[in-house]
Amino acid sequence: MILITGAAGFIGSAIAHSLNNLGFKTLTIDNFSTGYRSNLPKNTILIEGDCGDPETISQLQNYNVDTILHFAGQSSGEVSFNDPLADQKSNTTSTLLLLNYAKLKGIRKFIYASSMSVYGDHENLPVTEESVTMPKSLYAVGKLASEHYLNIYSNSDLKVVSLRLFNVYGPGQNLANLKQGMLSIYLAQALKDGQIKVKGSLERFRDLVYIDDVVEVVSLLVTTDLSNPYSVYNVANAYPVKVKEMITSIKAVLGNISVKEIEGTQGDQFGIFGSNYSLMKDFGWKPKIKHITGIKKMIAWAQNQR
Amino acid sequence: MILITGAAGFIGSAIAHSLNNLGFKTLTIDNFSTGYRSNLPKNTILIEGDCGDPETISQLQNYNVDTILHFAGQSSGEVSFNDPLADQKSNTTSTLLLLNYAKLKGIRKFIYASSMSVYGDHENLPVTEESVTMPKSLYAVGKLASEHYLNIYSNSDLKVVSLRLFNVYGPGQNLANLKQGMLSIYLAQALKDGQIKVKGSLERFRDLVYIDDVVEVVSLLVTTDLSNPYSVYNVANAYPVKVKEMITSIKAVLGNISVKEIEGTQGDQFGIFGSNYSLMKDFGWKPKIKHITGIKKMIAWAQNQR
Repeated sequence: MILITGAAGFIGSAIAHSLNNLGFKTLTIDNFSTGYRSNLPKNTILIEGDCGDPETISQLQNYNVDTILHFAGQSSGEVSFNDPLADQKSNTTSTLLLLNYAKLKGIRKFIYASSMSVYGDHENLPVTEESVTMPKSLYAVGKLASEHYLNIYSNSDLKVVSLRLFNVYGPGQNLANLKQGMLSIYLAQALKDGQIKVKGSLERFRDLVYIDDVVEVVSLLVTTDLSNPYSVYNVANAYPVKVKEMITSIKAVLGNISVKEIEGTQGDQFGIFGSNYSLMKDFGWKPKIKHITGIKKMIAWAQNQR
Repeated sequence: MILITGAAGFIGSAIAHSLNNLGFKTLTIDNFSTGYRSNLPKNTILIEGDCGDPETISQLQNYNVDTILHFAGQSSGEVSFNDPLADQKSNTTSTLLLLNYAKLKGIRKFIYASSMSVYGDHENLPVTEESVTMPKSLYAVGKLASEHYLNIYSNSDLKVVSLRLFNVYGPGQNLANLKQGMLSIYLAQALKDGQIKVKGSLERFRDLVYIDDVVEVVSLLVTTDLSNPYSVYNVANAYPVKVKEMITSIKAVLGNISVKEIEGTQGDQFGIFGSNYSLMKDFGWKPKIKHITGIKKMIAWAQNQR
């Protein structure tokens, strides 16, 4: 049985559906803080609660889990500054509790949703998994601390992979959450007001990864025997897309949209993109969807949601 | 007024006494988990509580603090594995709470007791402040996360220094605590049983820093205007001392002591020593006490404690 935390969220639910379709039994945890009950696959067993609460994790005792996919967590750098303790609980304590459970129950595999935010701002791009980590937000500090905890607990019985997800986007992203997901925020604003408010420079850039490509990475890791006790992988498309290019892509479909530049947010990285060579080398994974195609697919989906 | 957390502990109390003697007004926090009430200087104001509890930190509101010296914290890598959540609260949540207080009250200076443990095991020694951080214990992960938090909160109004303390030893170290402080553990065992139980190899090595030298660093930082918003400094003697050399030094004073090698502890580093060039360059600090002298002084003190 596979445990998926955050299975009502954007990425977690896409993974849960995919694994259900592949025939895996899934157990899911979500506190529905930003995710939706309707995102959960039908055949899953749900534990409703916060992964940072020992009480939630203690409910796992009754299940035979062999693999943990930890995708729950407060996912906004900006929001992490509003309530640092809540962010710590959500992104770091949760990992400690799950690791403790994994150790007690002899879990074999643990896949963790880390973030490209652990790198901070770098001059030498693309960043590789060996690049120095310089977190700029409290969120990023928590993700990095979780990576370190996972590394320490990993061994030949408990194989661990930390995935440094770059900017994941696509159908299913929460258009009502204007604090997380650059593309989904812009798209939600464009569809609602015909105006995109950009927090920070239009020259900032990101590495956009389409949700289906992320799901494929996770499926590969779930179904393949891992050799190393601990690994870190960038999940990246390996090229930069400027904010202004994202907006051009949105305009190309939705027509004229006005753009307003407003003050940037604390801890925001200026620009980053990642190498995806390691994941290609070790698992033969290659992202299939370029941003131009992906943004079109996402807009088509978003228009259907209105 | 200077706030000193952990002022009933080994290092915190030495700093508190020194600053009191220099004429500074001090406010202190301690939960007496490992420290002693008798360690506190007489003229200090004490808040009894845990720095990881919001309630303790809220009591600071009534005082005019300009400088924070955060030296409280669970200080054993070994113990951090027994209760990971308690370690996180003690070593990371405490820093977040104090930073939040510092921001609200316009604190000017924050000096943090980090640890050489953030480096983990390195082949290229001595480690410098630019060396890669690879924490091996949950304790070390928490110290590193705190450093990152401090870096993020620092700015031209709130100057922050993280001190990566190497193995601090000397008079005042808690001889009753057999989980923390390599030298004090060996010494306590030698005095009590005539036998030293070494957890791990005799070839392991550490960088021993005498308590008075650490106190001098802190005094310098308290009394000097800092130019950078954030800095990290090794507090190191810059040469390695093997476990077997420590034991030789103890034997030289106490006579024949038997030695028993037992199993090592989780997350223990094999060997490390640090460069102290940065602290020398920026503040003219140089450690004065070599380990041979320091160990003699410590033994003389310990024998008086019996």
